[in-house]
Amino acid sequence: MDSSHLTRLLSDLRSGKRTVKQVERLLAAPPAESLSFATIDHHRGIRQGFPEVIFCEGKTPAQVAGIAARIARAGNVVFGTRASRSHFAAVKRKIRSARYNPVARTISAREDRVTPRGTGTILVVTAGTSDIPVAEEALETARIMGNLTDSLFDVGVAGIHRILSQSDKLRSASVIIVVAGMEGALASVVGGLVDVPVIAVPTSIGYGANFQGISALLGMLNSCAAGVTVVNIDNGFGAGFAASLINRRRTANA
Amino acid sequence: MDSSHLTRLLSDLRSGKRTVKQVERLLAAPPAESLSFATIDHHRGIRQGFPEVIFCEGKTPAQVAGIAARIARAGNVVFGTRASRSHFAAVKRKIRSARYNPVARTISAREDRVTPRGTGTILVVTAGTSDIPVAEEALETARIMGNLTDSLFDVGVAGIHRILSQSDKLRSASVIIVVAGMEGALASVVGGLVDVPVIAVPTSIGYGANFQGISALLGMLNSCAAGVTVVNIDNGFGAGFAASLINRRRTANA
Amino acid sequence: MDSSHLTRLLSDLRSGKRTVKQVERLLAAPPAESLSFATIDHHRGIRQGFPEVIFCEGKTPAQVAGIAARIARAGNVVFGTRASRSHFAAVKRKIRSARYNPVARTISAREDRVTPRGTGTILVVTAGTSDIPVAEEALETARIMGNLTDSLFDVGVAGIHRILSQSDKLRSASVIIVVAGMEGALASVVGGLVDVPVIAVPTSIGYGANFQGISALLGMLNSCAAGVTVVNIDNGFGAGFAASLINRRRTANA
Amino acid sequence: MDSSHLTRLLSDLRSGKRTVKQVERLLAAPPAESLSFATIDHHRGIRQGFPEVIFCEGKTPAQVAGIAARIARAGNVVFGTRASRSHFAAVKRKIRSARYNPVARTISAREDRVTPRGTGTILVVTAGTSDIPVAEEALETARIMGNLTDSLFDVGVAGIHRILSQSDKLRSASVIIVVAGMEGALASVVGGLVDVPVIAVPTSIGYGANFQGISALLGMLNSCAAGVTVVNIDNGFGAGFAASLINRRRTANA
Amino acid sequence: MDSSHLTRLLSDLRSGKRTVKQVERLLAAPPAESLSFATIDHHRGIRQGFPEVIFCEGKTPAQVAGIAARIARAGNVVFGTRASRSHFAAVKRKIRSARYNPVARTISAREDRVTPRGTGTILVVTAGTSDIPVAEEALETARIMGNLTDSLFDVGVAGIHRILSQSDKLRSASVIIVVAGMEGALASVVGGLVDVPVIAVPTSIGYGANFQGISALLGMLNSCAAGVTVVNIDNGFGAGFAASLINRRRTANA
Amino acid sequence: MDSSHLTRLLSDLRSGKRTVKQVERLLAAPPAESLSFATIDHHRGIRQGFPEVIFCEGKTPAQVAGIAARIARAGNVVFGTRASRSHFAAVKRKIRSARYNPVARTISAREDRVTPRGTGTILVVTAGTSDIPVAEEALETARIMGNLTDSLFDVGVAGIHRILSQSDKLRSASVIIVVAGMEGALASVVGGLVDVPVIAVPTSIGYGANFQGISALLGMLNSCAAGVTVVNIDNGFGAGFAASLINRRRTANA
Amino acid sequence: MDSSHLTRLLSDLRSGKRTVKQVERLLAAPPAESLSFATIDHHRGIRQGFPEVIFCEGKTPAQVAGIAARIARAGNVVFGTRASRSHFAAVKRKIRSARYNPVARTISAREDRVTPRGTGTILVVTAGTSDIPVAEEALETARIMGNLTDSLFDVGVAGIHRILSQSDKLRSASVIIVVAGMEGALASVVGGLVDVPVIAVPTSIGYGANFQGISALLGMLNSCAAGVTVVNIDNGFGAGFAASLINRRRTANA
Amino acid sequence: MDSSHLTRLLSDLRSGKRTVKQVERLLAAPPAESLSFATIDHHRGIRQGFPEVIFCEGKTPAQVAGIAARIARAGNVVFGTRASRSHFAAVKRKIRSARYNPVARTISAREDRVTPRGTGTILVVTAGTSDIPVAEEALETARIMGNLTDSLFDVGVAGIHRILSQSDKLRSASVIIVVAGMEGALASVVGGLVDVPVIAVPTSIGYGANFQGISALLGMLNSCAAGVTVVNIDNGFGAGFAASLINRRRTANA
Repeated sequence: MDSSHLTRLLSDLRSGKRTVKQVERLLAAPPAESLSFATIDHHRGIRQGFPEVIFCEGKTPAQVAGIAARIARAGNVVFGTRASRSHFAAVKRKIRSARYNPVARTISAREDRVTPRGTGTILVVTAGTSDIPVAEEALETARIMGNLTDSLFDVGVAGIHRILSQSDKLRSASVIIVVAGMEGALASVVGGLVDVPVIAVPTSIGYGANFQGISALLGMLNSCAAGVTVVNIDNGFGAGFAASLINRRRTANA
Repeated sequence: MDSSHLTRLLSDLRSGKRTVKQVERLLAAPPAESLSFATIDHHRGIRQGFPEVIFCEGKTPAQVAGIAARIARAGNVVFGTRASRSHFAAVKRKIRSARYNPVARTISAREDRVTPRGTGTILVVTAGTSDIPVAEEALETARIMGNLTDSLFDVGVAGIHRILSQSDKLRSASVIIVVAGMEGALASVVGGLVDVPVIAVPTSIGYGANFQGISALLGMLNSCAAGVTVVNIDNGFGAGFAASLINRRRTANA
Repeated sequence: MDSSHLTRLLSDLRSGKRTVKQVERLLAAPPAESLSFATIDHHRGIRQGFPEVIFCEGKTPAQVAGIAARIARAGNVVFGTRASRSHFAAVKRKIRSARYNPVARTISAREDRVTPRGTGTILVVTAGTSDIPVAEEALETARIMGNLTDSLFDVGVAGIHRILSQSDKLRSASVIIVVAGMEGALASVVGGLVDVPVIAVPTSIGYGANFQGISALLGMLNSCAAGVTVVNIDNGFGAGFAASLINRRRTANA
Repeated sequence: MDSSHLTRLLSDLRSGKRTVKQVERLLAAPPAESLSFATIDHHRGIRQGFPEVIFCEGKTPAQVAGIAARIARAGNVVFGTRASRSHFAAVKRKIRSARYNPVARTISAREDRVTPRGTGTILVVTAGTSDIPVAEEALETARIMGNLTDSLFDVGVAGIHRILSQSDKLRSASVIIVVAGMEGALASVVGGLVDVPVIAVPTSIGYGANFQGISALLGMLNSCAAGVTVVNIDNGFGAGFAASLINRRRTANA
Repeated sequence: MDSSHLTRLLSDLRSGKRTVKQVERLLAAPPAESLSFATIDHHRGIRQGFPEVIFCEGKTPAQVAGIAARIARAGNVVFGTRASRSHFAAVKRKIRSARYNPVARTISAREDRVTPRGTGTILVVTAGTSDIPVAEEALETARIMGNLTDSLFDVGVAGIHRILSQSDKLRSASVIIVVAGMEGALASVVGGLVDVPVIAVPTSIGYGANFQGISALLGMLNSCAAGVTVVNIDNGFGAGFAASLINRRRTANA
Repeated sequence: MDSSHLTRLLSDLRSGKRTVKQVERLLAAPPAESLSFATIDHHRGIRQGFPEVIFCEGKTPAQVAGIAARIARAGNVVFGTRASRSHFAAVKRKIRSARYNPVARTISAREDRVTPRGTGTILVVTAGTSDIPVAEEALETARIMGNLTDSLFDVGVAGIHRILSQSDKLRSASVIIVVAGMEGALASVVGGLVDVPVIAVPTSIGYGANFQGISALLGMLNSCAAGVTVVNIDNGFGAGFAASLINRRRTANA
Repeated sequence: MDSSHLTRLLSDLRSGKRTVKQVERLLAAPPAESLSFATIDHHRGIRQGFPEVIFCEGKTPAQVAGIAARIARAGNVVFGTRASRSHFAAVKRKIRSARYNPVARTISAREDRVTPRGTGTILVVTAGTSDIPVAEEALETARIMGNLTDSLFDVGVAGIHRILSQSDKLRSASVIIVVAGMEGALASVVGGLVDVPVIAVPTSIGYGANFQGISALLGMLNSCAAGVTVVNIDNGFGAGFAASLINRRRTANA
Repeated sequence: MDSSHLTRLLSDLRSGKRTVKQVERLLAAPPAESLSFATIDHHRGIRQGFPEVIFCEGKTPAQVAGIAARIARAGNVVFGTRASRSHFAAVKRKIRSARYNPVARTISAREDRVTPRGTGTILVVTAGTSDIPVAEEALETARIMGNLTDSLFDVGVAGIHRILSQSDKLRSASVIIVVAGMEGALASVVGGLVDVPVIAVPTSIGYGANFQGISALLGMLNSCAAGVTVVNIDNGFGAGFAASLINRRRTANA
């Protein structure tokens, strides 16, 4: 439950859309709920602006489904990353409305709970075709957090006219996520063209001295263009999340 | 020259504060000016929202002073990082008003050109006392880019009540920069407490298996808290710059 | 055979529970027994306080079973780590009472030989759900070495109230084992909250710049909290073993 | 102020050794005190059993002296590590009784506040003569935390009779700290000989593929002897601190 | 063809055991023979004292068999390392007498050509049971090069009496090969006990911060015992080959 | 479309071999064509002298076939690297004339479009048999870019007469590509023997401290022979491409 | 002595410009000359097209001067790299005409022996001002090997119009050397714009995760632009040498 | 005291050259002697064939001199490595006959105690002039251990005729030590030319991607020539020591 959702809940009560019982049940959830294998952080939405996200890798399908069900029951949007098809199948059995994006490898459910938040567009740019799965993870994340999104795929610097010809799109975005493997040079070029925050996501695309994404990671950390920040290799989710926080207008009382 | 400065210039002409001649001379500057050792990017302000910044390390004092003089002559704010005292002395001889921050190792000049930006505060937090020079670089950068700033020093996780007791300050910031060496855990803890963008700066503080900041860098890249992005080791400037772009975006109408 | 077991053996003889023949046979075992592929260290129990443990990875099921049988015949507790199901099957054929923990991947047999040690509790804490297999290995090790154990799973620093709300449990433990992947920050936070020894176990959970556990390993080695020592990546056994030695020491008369 | 010190303070009040005023002043110290460059954690003694220790490297002499003075004023033992002679000189000007160990590079003051704690002896063993400075840091730490200590220097495995001939000393210790550079093999040999906790400290002694201590660090993390835990390269302080926590008998109510 | 074999060939001719034709055919082989995928070095035996050895990994079974057939036809011993069962099957089809050691993963053929060379015994020692495959590769290499061999398996330093009790065997060897994974400490201990050359072979046995053998490799390179030289990780062949060269008595005319 | 192809197209029009319509259609292609997953760079031939090459790894067969069809339709040579058999099958369905080299793992199509370039020969040399796949990738690349090629396989430095006996072939080449794994020493030896440009390709052949080609990569970057440049590990394509550009330059009028 | 120089020498004899004695003396030099500390390779010019170059780092001034004198006496151009002022002083005492370039840190002498070779221009491009010393080393090398040179300094990708506006200069060069630190992205951008060979030189300029040039090295090795080859970090000499070999037109008889 | 020295001592007693008193005093030395900072291993000569060698780096001059005096007093040869001039000065004050080799950085004393060993020659070969200091350390070590030595300096593979022309010298040696930096290729070339043991010493000579000797170390560990073993970077002492043990073995009766 995030704070905007809390407001809506109380308004619903006021206006009679929900009964006291219903709201009570939703609010009664303790801040953390202990399963035998997990301690679910139900107040994360209030603290961080978005409920706990399930990192599925390394968890069994039963564990993922168990956590997802608890989050849904607490009235929150469900979002899982690095999910396999068998993770999804287990969740689907518990939550009918769950949806799977096989390229992004994300599970989404209770999307009716998504609160539109962003005020501008989050643009996701990739250097190559092989970077698309990571870009899709970022796009799914940005969308479920209530943002408008756009994308430009396969515009790496080896053919620099491809990105230069899109400078209008670049400059009109609110935040830009650059997803690139190999040497990751696209982040520096984009970073030098715009005055909006750029989040760079190195990918493990490449081979040899690429070292599963280290070359792109180091390239992006050492970007000669100011204003570029970096997330972990292949971490489309992290980029999408950070971009969403940036894209939210600060609230008046802050 | 950045775009807001351009607007001001033209208004000044309109209102008679400046003559056609004066404005002409300022606008006549070509987008890039070639010295024998540098190609100064005079349009960076328009493109990126802040004029070219001089990275002094590896340049001779004469080179730094030469570049600074050209930037000043083009009517721009002058800002130099990683500057030694001898870099500063050379600049000072050319630009009387230059100021040196020996902790941050920055040179600032023509600060009257600074354009105040937004109403949000950029908060810089350090894990230890030894991280302060990097934090100061971030603070100087944020200030010269027109932002309000605040700071919390030496609040690392070994005594976690120090940061927990400051959660109001944390949550009211517009962007937070976390500067930490050793294991860099402070970024994860802060990232988990707030709903604003967090930029993590690993520092080379530590010894042994710290590897000049790699331990903090890896810790921050692998942060379990979503919404944390990372810049290069000891790169206070990069963090300050990115935070400024974010703060503009988030508080544009505020 | 460990030294407490030796005492019991001699007492049993005295009281008539065992015959001279029986005790003779058990004591006649040479300090090291040579198979074609192994040199079993039968005096390790006397020297180190616990008999030789079988590291199963890289050994054939036949080799593991052969070693286990020899250890059991010498009157010792049998304990194997990194065991696959086929390792277990081979041991089971030789020792009926053998038990397998598929999460911890441990084989235990002759658990009647376990000597209860001390009154303090070894507490095992994990940052996430995916760290549980390593935690289970530590718990199995601590238990077979005669210790009381307790656990707290999935209380990582991204939701720091989860660990802060458990500070009583933390402070009443005799030794704490912190199991965490990603940036491993939980070790520093726990280390800063308690005055008991903390053993940190980095796990290979994570991806990208996690480098199969290096990020957590470096984070823990560089912990800003004093009193934290570290074992190898994913080495739940090593942590459980060291914790047992510490727990004996600290609660010897208790 | 640690908890045993608190008890003594209150007893002193009771018995008339201190006045209400005096005790009041000592207790009135807030849990954290903010200087412009540091946030001193005055409750660390109560939480961790020993007051905040000053890591001097990267701090100016003035900063170190400022922090030391505050800690002393709060009635605590002062202890600084990685201290240069100029750090010491600055502290000495503020605290007359300060003492410097030039081999260990530690500053100690208010040693009258040391509370005897340990119940056994902490034994520090080095592989070579060059490892002595790190060993001395561990010894100073253990002593100021109230422990009995002993040492064995230059008993590396190249002449293994040197350590084997000392097995009585090894086995009678309560905790053993093994300090070694190069390949760090001494930790494994000692770990295999005893049933007490062994803390291994890799040192940066060596050259070439030693990589400033990485060879010893990896060797110790991969020790084939169970019961060995590891601290950061050259971290004598960390080893001494952890050994002290282990050496304390658990208190009755735990 | 090695030089001793050449001597024998000419003696055979003299004594009538072989015809001129036969010897002619064997000597007519050019120093290097080109296949489409390989350039076989037929003079390696004369130059290096042993014919070309086939490193099978990365070659197809057909390529390995083709090379083996050419070497056999030139009258040389055939030896292949890192061979899979399918490599062996292909060789077996061409050379009936070929033999496979599935633990060492070596193929041997024309072993009647082996010339007894060594004057002492090459002793191969392993730290653990899992190191045996690498040890077997060394043993097969030493034997096919005409040496007497002996072995001691699973005598790692965690139970140091296992190796100390074998000091007679150690000191009577002519060359010792120490095969160890994890921290590789056994090489230092053995190196300190004997006055014969010690060749250390790091193995990839271990996990986590073992990094597939790097910990053992670094440990051995940094051995505090003089007289230890090192070969590549898991390179039993290289150790066996070097040991064979050492074990040969220098010829009179050298 | 490369520039020589453009010339031919216009000549064909002039001479009546092609109609205005046909040429019009070929020239009408925009410089970049956007698919949903790729932005094809149709002007790369004019800019770089060779049309866009498809790096197949990480792309689905459908994506590869889609891109290949677009390139073919634009009248360009089609070339794909790191292609699996299923990539090839998908392309084959769209372009009948496509050819697959299973050793090099390349797909070639529309080879009638290849423009013969220069009279110099590109010589590809390998240290071992296992390096041949990388060499084949370089050879396929050089041939499809219109060059004459030659090769020498398995002439590594362990039998140095193999390469020394080929010095005529070496010295008569226009460019030499040296493909080697393990320590990569062949590049230095060849580089010291000739006065033509040498491009070194490290391969991932080897094991242990080879680290998937790093040993060869570092060896080649540190070559004591001047005139050696290096490409990424296993990057036969990059070497073949660079060699083609060099060969054009060096034999432009020849 | 290189081969063109040999031709000239013989022509000079023919035409009477030199006496038989003079030529005899020059040709009498053995292919390698042994000093106590060096074995000078006098035939390198014939083999490699340029005489032996002195890498001064790690040699004493006396050694450098001794080698330089021998090379000069053999009638060859003298060229030293990584030379300090004291190296130069020692050479200057032996060879009056010696010249020092303090930025490039090169020593040149007997420049009258330089044979014009190149047929086009070698263009050296740098990303920043701090990269100029490495660029100067490349330029000095290219010039002493007889090439025309040109340069573009400080045109990094953060202000991409600086390099795009120079595309004519880029496309008219015969070979391009790109010198860049930080992320090294300039190599990819230039490589994508031209159809001439590009040699990339990573520099150690940067800090933090730059790791003394590794970030630029990896970026360049992983360049997404084909046709880019790489030399060692800061190796301006190697780039200049390779570019010179490329720039020479192949001789007719090759 | 080594075993041959023991024999001589007893013979001297027999023949009346020494008195019972004298021999008694020499034999009375305990196997290990404890100073406050060192535990001298006086029996190392008997165990390892050469007395303890002093690694001076990291020890104070006073410590080195103290150890040296004890070794000399026990009747042993004194040998110190990595010695600075101030180490030497301190030793010289205690042992008049001490000698310093400033290139090798070794201290030698009591050289009359050197026992001549074997008739074979240890040949030390370097790739470059800068490798000589490491070679000198190896040569000093080999000589003080009683071996005949020879050397070939600056014969690296860039001018391969330099080493090929010396093949007689190479093949007549008993053991060869190859000292090389950069890519270390010389070890492979030499290893492929001879049938004697080759010990490779990587040096830290080079720059950039040499990483202080890692490139040479990896190159040598991955040598394609069999029979090459490796010691630590710059470890001339280790190579000289191992070569001495090998030379004894190979020429025992010669």
